[in-house]
Amino acid sequence: MKQIKGVVFDLYGTLFDVHSVAARCESFYPQRGREISLIWRQKQLEYTWLRSLMRQYQDFERATEDALVYACQHLGLDLTDARKQVLCNEYLRIAPFPEVPAALQAMRDSGLPLAILSNGSINSIDTVVKNAGLYDQFAHLISVDAIKIFKPDARVYALAEQMMQLDRNAILFVSSNAWDVTGAGYYGYPTCWINRGGSTFDELGRRPDHIAHSINALADLLTAAQVDC
Amino acid sequence: MKQIKGVVFDLYGTLFDVHSVAARCESFYPQRGREISLIWRQKQLEYTWLRSLMRQYQDFERATEDALVYACQHLGLDLTDARKQVLCNEYLRIAPFPEVPAALQAMRDSGLPLAILSNGSINSIDTVVKNAGLYDQFAHLISVDAIKIFKPDARVYALAEQMMQLDRNAILFVSSNAWDVTGAGYYGYPTCWINRGGSTFDELGRRPDHIAHSINALADLLTAAQVDC
Repeated sequence: MKQIKGVVFDLYGTLFDVHSVAARCESFYPQRGREISLIWRQKQLEYTWLRSLMRQYQDFERATEDALVYACQHLGLDLTDARKQVLCNEYLRIAPFPEVPAALQAMRDSGLPLAILSNGSINSIDTVVKNAGLYDQFAHLISVDAIKIFKPDARVYALAEQMMQLDRNAILFVSSNAWDVTGAGYYGYPTCWINRGGSTFDELGRRPDHIAHSINALADLLTAAQVDC
Repeated sequence: MKQIKGVVFDLYGTLFDVHSVAARCESFYPQRGREISLIWRQKQLEYTWLRSLMRQYQDFERATEDALVYACQHLGLDLTDARKQVLCNEYLRIAPFPEVPAALQAMRDSGLPLAILSNGSINSIDTVVKNAGLYDQFAHLISVDAIKIFKPDARVYALAEQMMQLDRNAILFVSSNAWDVTGAGYYGYPTCWINRGGSTFDELGRRPDHIAHSINALADLLTAAQVDC
């Protein structure tokens, strides 16, 4: 970790917990919340990948809405416009994982510039980060919307390198999504996979350079390495 | 359908039934076959999409093997090399859906050239089609392997247009995969979605031009249209 001069984070599921979205599903559809949110999340990702391959980009918020429509239709559940709006807006109300604020502060205290690189629109990223009171921790909030293609297209990962003005081998890329870690690794970033709960890493021909079970554990690794320098 | 001068089919799940793959999983892992084959299929597709976006193409057979490794690891099941080989080879032993041979013959009798456009390697497509005794029905067997990227990248769909030497609006593209139908539709083909069992079409901004519940039902539509001419 000694060569690391900056850190780029994924947002959804990595710094911020999307659990509240599932809870809101459960409140509208008792006993079905988990089922809905699993299909919703799966299709949300699929639609970003497929639209990227088809060169038919629409923003992440549209993919999120389309995926929810699919999930409810697939499960035979009635989705009113009002419910759709509340459920999709829940993505703007998500909270950081409990350890995140202090862990980000520790990394900043050790002199590392931090950034977020997300599939979300810049408006969504801004809203979520400001709501959590974390806006001042980040040197850059970067959205794929600038180039109209989603992760793991290499051009997305290039955005962070350009904004940070550091060589890619000096930027640690951090995500809880195995496919995101792999895409960043193929681009050339050192990577850290956040594995909070015994997930299985994807078989895409690359392993993460580091694994941590929380952002706090990552901060410990990084700050120890900085002190070593 | 009157403007249709040729028909291009997807292979896996559209003309050929991959059910026997799940049955083989069940024989090795009693009570777990369905669970394994669902994750296996999901990851097989994901890996083709992700590797395409990452520009890290490896052939479909490799994606299939990697996805099986993930599925067994995720479920905590022991996968020996011998079992892996048997399960992956099952993809070379799949059979056409029962109505397919007669339906293809009917389309050919009405003068339509037929082709297959598949993510599989040319060796896999050849083997499967020859085993089923259907080799002579097709004017072209087309693999993405020629251009090292998977569906739904537009360059894949372009292959069929080049090989068939017909305008894209005269080629009907037929698949049971909603995302494949959508990619072909965005490319410019008229499309038919084969929906054998009440599936939900994906929310990717396009609908299929036609829907049929079997290849036989499609043949009826096509041959009626040809007679009308």
